[in-house]
Amino acid sequence: MNDRKNIRFSNLSINTMDTDKKKMVRSRLVMGAVVVGAVCLGIGIGIGYAARGSSSDQHINGNAPKHEAQTQDPVDVLLSSLDSNNIKENLRRYTSRPRMSGTVGGDEIIDIIADEWRNSGLDMVRVTPYDVLMSYPNRTNPNTVELMSNNNEVVFQAATYEEPLDAEGNNSEIVPPFNAFAVAGVAEGDLVYVNYGRIEDFVFLRDNQSISVEGKIVIARYGKIFRGDKVKIAQQYNATGIIMYTDPADFNMGNSTYPNSWWLPGSGVQRGTTGPDGDMLTMFYPAKDYTYRIPKSESWIADSTIPAQPIGYGDAKHFLSAMKGNQVPVSWRGGLPITYKFGPGFTNNTIKARLTVNNLEEVKTVRNVIGYIRGEVEPDRYIMLGNHHDSWVFGAIDPLSGSAVLTEIIRVLGNMLKQGLRPRRTIVFGSWGAEEHGLIGSTEWVEEYMKVLYERTVAYLNVDYACDYPYVLVAGTSPLLQDSLYQSAKKVPNPEKNTQFNTLYDVWKDRLPNTDKTEPSVYYSLGSGSDMATFYQRAGVPSVDMWFTYDENKWDILSYPTYHSAYETFEMFTRFIDPNFNFTLAMAQMWSIMAWDLANEELLPFDPTRYATAIKDFVASLKKDFSEVWRQQNVNIQAMDSAVRNLTKSTNAFKAKIQSLVDTSPLSIRMLNDKMIQFERAFIDPEGLPDRRIYKHVMFAPSLYDSYSDNSFPGVVDTMHDIQINNRTDKWGLLKQQVSVATYTIQSAANTLDDIGL
Amino acid sequence: MNDRKNIRFSNLSINTMDTDKKKMVRSRLVMGAVVVGAVCLGIGIGIGYAARGSSSDQHINGNAPKHEAQTQDPVDVLLSSLDSNNIKENLRRYTSRPRMSGTVGGDEIIDIIADEWRNSGLDMVRVTPYDVLMSYPNRTNPNTVELMSNNNEVVFQAATYEEPLDAEGNNSEIVPPFNAFAVAGVAEGDLVYVNYGRIEDFVFLRDNQSISVEGKIVIARYGKIFRGDKVKIAQQYNATGIIMYTDPADFNMGNSTYPNSWWLPGSGVQRGTTGPDGDMLTMFYPAKDYTYRIPKSESWIADSTIPAQPIGYGDAKHFLSAMKGNQVPVSWRGGLPITYKFGPGFTNNTIKARLTVNNLEEVKTVRNVIGYIRGEVEPDRYIMLGNHHDSWVFGAIDPLSGSAVLTEIIRVLGNMLKQGLRPRRTIVFGSWGAEEHGLIGSTEWVEEYMKVLYERTVAYLNVDYACDYPYVLVAGTSPLLQDSLYQSAKKVPNPEKNTQFNTLYDVWKDRLPNTDKTEPSVYYSLGSGSDMATFYQRAGVPSVDMWFTYDENKWDILSYPTYHSAYETFEMFTRFIDPNFNFTLAMAQMWSIMAWDLANEELLPFDPTRYATAIKDFVASLKKDFSEVWRQQNVNIQAMDSAVRNLTKSTNAFKAKIQSLVDTSPLSIRMLNDKMIQFERAFIDPEGLPDRRIYKHVMFAPSLYDSYSDNSFPGVVDTMHDIQINNRTDKWGLLKQQVSVATYTIQSAANTLDDIGL
Repeated sequence: MNDRKNIRFSNLSINTMDTDKKKMVRSRLVMGAVVVGAVCLGIGIGIGYAARGSSSDQHINGNAPKHEAQTQDPVDVLLSSLDSNNIKENLRRYTSRPRMSGTVGGDEIIDIIADEWRNSGLDMVRVTPYDVLMSYPNRTNPNTVELMSNNNEVVFQAATYEEPLDAEGNNSEIVPPFNAFAVAGVAEGDLVYVNYGRIEDFVFLRDNQSISVEGKIVIARYGKIFRGDKVKIAQQYNATGIIMYTDPADFNMGNSTYPNSWWLPGSGVQRGTTGPDGDMLTMFYPAKDYTYRIPKSESWIADSTIPAQPIGYGDAKHFLSAMKGNQVPVSWRGGLPITYKFGPGFTNNTIKARLTVNNLEEVKTVRNVIGYIRGEVEPDRYIMLGNHHDSWVFGAIDPLSGSAVLTEIIRVLGNMLKQGLRPRRTIVFGSWGAEEHGLIGSTEWVEEYMKVLYERTVAYLNVDYACDYPYVLVAGTSPLLQDSLYQSAKKVPNPEKNTQFNTLYDVWKDRLPNTDKTEPSVYYSLGSGSDMATFYQRAGVPSVDMWFTYDENKWDILSYPTYHSAYETFEMFTRFIDPNFNFTLAMAQMWSIMAWDLANEELLPFDPTRYATAIKDFVASLKKDFSEVWRQQNVNIQAMDSAVRNLTKSTNAFKAKIQSLVDTSPLSIRMLNDKMIQFERAFIDPEGLPDRRIYKHVMFAPSLYDSYSDNSFPGVVDTMHDIQINNRTDKWGLLKQQVSVATYTIQSAANTLDDIGL
Repeated sequence: MNDRKNIRFSNLSINTMDTDKKKMVRSRLVMGAVVVGAVCLGIGIGIGYAARGSSSDQHINGNAPKHEAQTQDPVDVLLSSLDSNNIKENLRRYTSRPRMSGTVGGDEIIDIIADEWRNSGLDMVRVTPYDVLMSYPNRTNPNTVELMSNNNEVVFQAATYEEPLDAEGNNSEIVPPFNAFAVAGVAEGDLVYVNYGRIEDFVFLRDNQSISVEGKIVIARYGKIFRGDKVKIAQQYNATGIIMYTDPADFNMGNSTYPNSWWLPGSGVQRGTTGPDGDMLTMFYPAKDYTYRIPKSESWIADSTIPAQPIGYGDAKHFLSAMKGNQVPVSWRGGLPITYKFGPGFTNNTIKARLTVNNLEEVKTVRNVIGYIRGEVEPDRYIMLGNHHDSWVFGAIDPLSGSAVLTEIIRVLGNMLKQGLRPRRTIVFGSWGAEEHGLIGSTEWVEEYMKVLYERTVAYLNVDYACDYPYVLVAGTSPLLQDSLYQSAKKVPNPEKNTQFNTLYDVWKDRLPNTDKTEPSVYYSLGSGSDMATFYQRAGVPSVDMWFTYDENKWDILSYPTYHSAYETFEMFTRFIDPNFNFTLAMAQMWSIMAWDLANEELLPFDPTRYATAIKDFVASLKKDFSEVWRQQNVNIQAMDSAVRNLTKSTNAFKAKIQSLVDTSPLSIRMLNDKMIQFERAFIDPEGLPDRRIYKHVMFAPSLYDSYSDNSFPGVVDTMHDIQINNRTDKWGLLKQQVSVATYTIQSAANTLDDIGL
């Protein structure tokens, strides 16, 4: 997972936000639930394909031949066959050495997975190679973060590796901490502490503290926004380099640390990319052998000029405690036992900081494993399950806990296939490479198969890591798939046998309820951070991203503590994350049942009214924030209201229609399904977002800023940010244009549900 | 029709081309015919929906109820019901006054057509308004083209109106000759004759004649390339203004002229737009009330800086004959009885030219009339018939001969509907506004309904004008629709009763055969010039554009002579174009039968192998032209060859499959149809062509240049032009990128025909 943490916590963690934001996020998490919750759950079941017991019927009213093996309910087969021991052994094999993309271990796991999938009896398994620009540290010339004396002697040097804390810690294949696509370079001089390195942090420094970072190295704590944006923003403010670290306030709430608990020790360092999504030399197109590469000098990386390097909080303390300047305000204070100061510079005037980055970019072959089970009735409709297989180090949590689950699902589905249980639609499996470097494997594959994926994919279900803590399910979803998520969770047993709840749904609703406690909370901003991004953002495929996590009300942290460190080992997973693999097994059940039902219910269990409600709430939220200033600027919000009303009307009419369906011929059902598939595609604008044409989903995309809690209407919200935070009053035209694009898109979505729609 | 003439004659008229080009065009016109001609015609008929006699059967193997009225073959109903007298009376009404978009007469015809369509009993008729930037001459301050003495007295002034030559000629609503979106301005100075005003003409002037047009007014003859490109190119070469005229060599081969024949008199002037396709203030989005408009100062027109004005050849003679300089070479000589000289300047050194343009741009409401007949079985699949209703003046040929036909078709289809003959799929009718100003009505409508049109439209059939001369059918088509065209033409009686041929197909094949005379020629470059452009270029809808025209082997002219003049009157049409309305009727038959069959055959009569053959031939043509220089530059042509082989294999396999179809269930047929619909969409690249993002069809788009005879692979061919003609060696990277995009696109198209395609 390359950056989901930031997306996730801007949505879910209400504790780390200002009061105003809390309300907005909370209301957003539950949207749609109150109005349509109970009713819509029944649609798929009532009218849909009778998945339980007749998986190969061509038609609900037809007389298709029955397979003998099908006396058993496929969902029961899944529940009884998926085995936590297999998942555990999968994880043990997969985590036996570091699996960074482009390394020996990274290549090996591809072959292992491909072999295992082939042996499971899938109809097709293929490895798809792409030659892409990758980034690695220079192993003979390490990156360093140092304090220097005035005669250029090293006073202190941050560790260039993570202290070995378990049996696996001494593996020479462990990549030293680095930030992928941080450029090589040396920066030397005073330090300035910039909190999370957001635009508002730099604005605060400038306006409230009169501190310029020009010519300085900045030190920022990880979190809140994408680390690549921290680098970009620091560069914009003319810093010469950036050091990022995991502050204990954000990643460590324990009294002990690994190997005595799951908490992050001071030596742990978060690796991570700072680059764009997909191969930067072949933007928009697959990085095939025949594809033209732009010169590196014209690519994304040519615009990145300052070095960046991560360190642990044990080392960060040495730098931060030596700084001078005013004390920072409370909201800037981290969890180290020091007095946080802004800088610039050090109490001891004779020392300075030096940051040396020697990363190398090189073209490497990145590979995905793709497999499928051909659909019996509608082979040209795909349900896709995806997970990545590359990890920064051992990846026992991220992502191999997910990979271990996926291979177990494939084993069981392969067996079901041998027994004649072939799904109605095609089920596709993707094991992605180079996700950590920027969703590269999945992006290139989606680009290669864009045409058919756009036309035919019913849903993409992403599980990056299956579990980072055995407590509660978290799911990001397209509103269209929200009901399907709930429906599946009701079929999964509660992974904790000793509680009052029978199903995963019940415990989910209890531990992460929406405001009125009628349903579990989900979030809608599938913007970035894992492989669903390209499916959702570019191909308009309704997607889900889910995992088990800790109690965010209990621990106010920005991700699981050892995220992207060398301590994510099999030992750690089995001791602290999911020792009995109960939650990992629950994920296997949840993921496979959801996929099976989507692949088999004749009428897709999508509910477009969820989308209408979501958009209605987003528009209300926009108006709450901006109506006054928009009225002054004559922004046309009435038209957007009108489009929202049309969408509500159209989705309600569609829902009423499928609830009292008269014509249940296979052709008519297909036409209804087509409308629902097209509905999500209507939100894709080929012209893309302003200055970010790669992002094409008008409703949900990663916001460039953390200041607004809502990631919906990114073109509108980001432009408002530019106007208000950056004082770009020249952008009112663009704002109005983006509001009209949103209006147009909402209206287009409404049209797709009509029989004719013209 | 705003510029089809240029497209057409770069494809069809072999007489006006160099020898090398002749071969290429000829071979292109017939491609696909030899290999697959006879076989594929049977597919739609054999397996398809039994249109003749059972139009409402839900399913070819099913037991759907029969309508009693359906004892008659719908095609026979069409043939027996369509009435040339009605078409004639429609044309009389429609041409009773000038119909320029944005005028009283232009508004009136919209109401007339909407009323007539409503009265025909369509299921829906709606008028769709868009507020767009339009351009008109200033009626109180006319545009002038003058010769001035050195004391600034007017020595000669070109007519500011066309001499009235028939009863309609004195109508005060006739708009004076002008070029829409030519900017207001005054240019004064020497004249330079620039032949057709192509880049190669300016290059010839510069390199062979050492003549710079900088600071000069250029005079260019109409034809060969889009008139807007002449203005753009003249501006690039720093001319101060451009005068365009219709040279008799290109538009007049007669001894007499109108009103004594159809030939263009010296006073006739070709109006026409010089602007882009669609509203320039709302590019990519519909010009709705809620849509943001960019300021005019940031729009297309802000980059247009030199005035332009058209004149007749009667007036042009006064300017050209007064010029001095070297005599032009043969290929530059026009048909005026003068000695053509390059200039610059005049024999009489005391005179100079003055060009004064006072055009005004203003936002006007442009309206389309949209109607449909709802499909009984697949309402979410559209067959669309389109024609525009705006004309520069009376428009008896362009476009109202087409409008008169469309209204008659709607009358008959409305009657058939009343008799229970409802088509399987939805038939949509569009009467477009402001086509002449730049396809504005159709573009805005396609933009508004892009999502559903992209997903659902089976075919768009354009007839701009039905007939400019009663001789032979000309058709531009997507290769996918080529068989459907032939199949329909075989059902239409030969409009000339006294020849040896029974059907339109037979006479068509005789008069415009392909090289080996096995089929009629068609052309594939549906780039621009009429309303199919946006459907084809942006929405990827398989399209056709057709009309009856003169014998191009007999008359070497660049369009029918009175194109866009005030002489296109009802009187002219009935005296010289189609006095008995036999050809106009044949168009009604052809157009409606093709639409009916596409709307009713259960298996769409598309043949993707036509596309594969076309692309194979285009690639061969590219390699013939460029293989040597491409090898030197390491352009990857092998990958393109490989993609073409995959496409050929994939289309052949698909064709074999539908020829021996086992599963004929409605769902299976729908899945096959979906693949064929998606096949054309695969050629749409959301990123668009270089510097012309509005054009997104990778295979066929209007080329920016006339130098290459082939309009296929526009991104590749235009870039090669830039490299070779403009010496832009910096563009080799772009060339390679465009070659890889073409390769990728061809492979994507192949994938769409596979059941899974991943």
